[in-house]
Order: sequence, then C-alpha cells, then structure tokens
Amino acid sequence: MGLGPGRLDCLTGQARQALEEAQAVVGYRTYLELAAPLLEGKQVVASAMTRELDRAGLALDLALEGQKVALVSSGDPGIYAMAAVVFELARSRRLDLRSGGLALEVVPGVPALAAAASLLGAPLSHDFACVSLSDRLTPWELIEKRLSLAAEADFVIALYNPKSKGRAWQLGRACDIIAGQRSPRTPVGVVRKALRQGQSLEITDLAGAPQADIDMQTLLIVGNSQSFTYQGRLVTPRGYIDKYGEK
Amino acid sequence: MGLGPGRLDCLTGQARQALEEAQAVVGYRTYLELAAPLLEGKQVVASAMTRELDRAGLALDLALEGQKVALVSSGDPGIYAMAAVVFELARSRRLDLRSGGLALEVVPGVPALAAAASLLGAPLSHDFACVSLSDRLTPWELIEKRLSLAAEADFVIALYNPKSKGRAWQLGRACDIIAGQRSPRTPVGVVRKALRQGQSLEITDLAGAPQADIDMQTLLIVGNSQSFTYQGRLVTPRGYIDKYGEK
Repeated sequence: MGLGPGRLDCLTGQARQALEEAQAVVGYRTYLELAAPLLEGKQVVASAMTRELDRAGLALDLALEGQKVALVSSGDPGIYAMAAVVFELARSRRLDLRSGGLALEVVPGVPALAAAASLLGAPLSHDFACVSLSDRLTPWELIEKRLSLAAEADFVIALYNPKSKGRAWQLGRACDIIAGQRSPRTPVGVVRKALRQGQSLEITDLAGAPQADIDMQTLLIVGNSQSFTYQGRLVTPRGYIDKYGEK
Repeated sequence: MGLGPGRLDCLTGQARQALEEAQAVVGYRTYLELAAPLLEGKQVVASAMTRELDRAGLALDLALEGQKVALVSSGDPGIYAMAAVVFELARSRRLDLRSGGLALEVVPGVPALAAAASLLGAPLSHDFACVSLSDRLTPWELIEKRLSLAAEADFVIALYNPKSKGRAWQLGRACDIIAGQRSPRTPVGVVRKALRQGQSLEITDLAGAPQADIDMQTLLIVGNSQSFTYQGRLVTPRGYIDKYGEK
C-alpha cells in the first residue's frame, strides 16, 4: 500500500483504512515514521532501506500465518516500490493468489512524481517518461539508452533516485545525454521531500541541475521542448492556447 | 485539484479539505458527479468535456472576484488534466501569481495510471512512458515517433485516451508500432473505469489489445520485455529475485 508523499493529509481514505485494518505493518523505517500516528497498537516491523526482499518475504510470511498485513511504500507502491517485489516473490514461491489462496491487494497512493509536479506547477502535463538513475538492478548502459531515446522523443522526463552517497556522477551524465537533444536552457524542477517535512524546491535548467542540492529523496522533472517557466512555476503546455487562442 | 480515480475513499485528505473550503467548484460534468456528496451547498459549475479553456477561464474569473474556487480533474490534475491549462491561461492573461496576487495551488491526486496499475498487479514497476493517443492537440506523427522510441527503449508504456467515438484506428496502429520492437505476445493490461463505478479489467497481449472493450475511460498498460503474468496479475519485475535469488 502507498502512503503517498508523506504528509498524513495526502493519504487516501482507502490507504488509511488498510492501515487501520492491518494487524501487522511492515516497511522501511523512514516510511513507517511518516505514518507513526496511525500505527499505535499494531505489530510494526521496520527494516533498512536495501532489504526489499526481506520485507516482502516477511510480509508474505505473516500473511500466510493468517494475519492482515500492510506492507507500506511511500508514494505509490507500484512505481519503483514494493508491489512488484511481492509479486516476484509470490511467483518464486508458487503461492496461490486466486480466490481461496492468499488475498493480495495493491492500494495506490499519490506517487512522488505527482507530488513533486504539484509543487512545481504543471510540468508533467504532456507525454512523459520516468527513469530511475539507480544502477543497482539495471545496467547503466540500458539507463543511458532510455535517457537518450526519451530525450529524442521529446518526453518530459522524471528522474527518480538521481543521486546517493555512493552514486554521484550519474546525474551529470544523464543531464548531458538529455542536453544532447534538448537545449541546455531547458527548465528542470528539483524537488526534495515533496509534501513531507523538510520540503524544498528549485527551478533550474539542464546545465545547472547537476549542481543543485540533490539526494535520494529528490526527484527531478526535466521539461520538454515546449515547457516554460512563469512566475516561479514550471509548466508543460497542453497546447490549448496555441490551438484555440483565448476567446 | 485531483479527485483521484473516482471512488470517494480514493480521495486524499488534502483534496477533501480543498473541496470543503471551496465556495465554487468547477469541472467536467462526469467528474463532478463522482464528488457529488461533497458538493452540497456550493456553487457548482459543470461543463462539457471539450471545454477545457472555458472551465479554466471561468475558474480564474471566479477566483479573481475573490471566491475560493476548486477546479476539479479526475485522477491527478497534472497528468493530461487541467493544471497546465490554468497556468497557460494565467500566462496568456499575464496574471500575477506571486504573493499578493492570485494564490494558485495544485492539489495532487492518485493518477489513473496508478489506479489501473494497482488493479492489474504491478505493471509499472520499472521505467515507463506515458503517451496519449489523442491527436486533438498533438500531431499524430509526433505520437507515432514517441511510441516507436518508447518501444525501442523497452519502457513499460501507459496509453491514455486510447479510443473515442470519432477516433478508432489509432490504438491498432499504436500496438503495431510497439509490436515492431517487442513480441506481439507482450502482456497488456486493459482497465476501464479503474476504482470507479463500472470498473472492468482484462489482461491480453499486444496482438489482442485492439480488439478489447475500450473507450475514453480506459487505460492500457503495455508491459516491457521482462513483464510477466502470474495468476491473473500483470507484473514488471524490478529484478530482485534475478539478482539476489530468494534466501
């Protein structure tokens, strides 16, 4: 299930109910802290960030013992998060997910990209691509290929996992690849901790983005060739004014 | 502001509060009906689907008169929805959006793509692209180019606005383009009215997708080369099992 960006008022009613009904709640420590006020009286199992398989396995074990389990992700659980890990593991264990078997439900949440976009203005409002710069599970060559083709397609590009302590050069390289097919003046929104405590944002451009204050809780949105800034907002037009003018 | 997919329990607390505080609510008729129980006692202005500029202009006019206005989209307002239209219009009218001027806030919602993905399983869990097949404002040649490059990049591909009464052939052509670089057996999720009354879904493949029951309230998610189906779910693996195995 998805907690959304972090502020409790960004949770959906469906997600809140799933938490309320859960007997056990499993998740990465930082995300569980976001939901702390809703976890009283429950069995809570927190784990470190890189233990995705452990978390999914534990959640499945508890559920198979008969408990109602909520496995939490921040944002949406289906976007670079835990939902797929659970299904990968369920298939590997050949679990029965049909009626009568284990009841797995994915509860969506507001994804980080929608939260970041809402603070910037409307940068995602035309065709877009979403690319993670983490090469922990994906070969860097494939990430470069995707960036290059997404740039050629003039997609707005959301960059997840732009930088971490041990991974610093990838973002500069990504911006260079995109700038190979888009002006270095293309506006870029940099949003850290969108709709969660400590939120900050900046609008820069492709040339300036690698120097911005960026960590694993930051998401970048690179405009397409039509994106513009207006009074501190980053907007990708849908094209109504160009086509119809204002009456 | 975004209503999310439609069911009222998919609304966030932030969106619910924005509706409660609004004196006037503006939106496309079908979306306003989704939120009807929350609109009592408010000035409600419903309009037809294709009147996006009218809706945005009216919302701005009411706000400039001093009213608190909620302009609603279903899903997330920043993804093929009204947020950009408002900013396009604000720029065209040279409105002051800085402090002391008009206070514009975008309230995110669970996007249709996250709602659809949650029902299918976890199809969006790796890099993905989002493409609208509507050529009302975008030249069809550009849409084809984006589809072709997205397919070459092995993105999971979410297709918005796949078909309407007057626009039937585009989806078949889109599937052909993707199948040029991906097996015709690639799984495709077809979700109609995700998390709203009348919901239905089907998992087919690229060859079968054009024959599915599809309209403007349908979203398609085309898997990448790694996507699989398991017990009625469509999943794009993140790769944990392949890399680490199960302990």
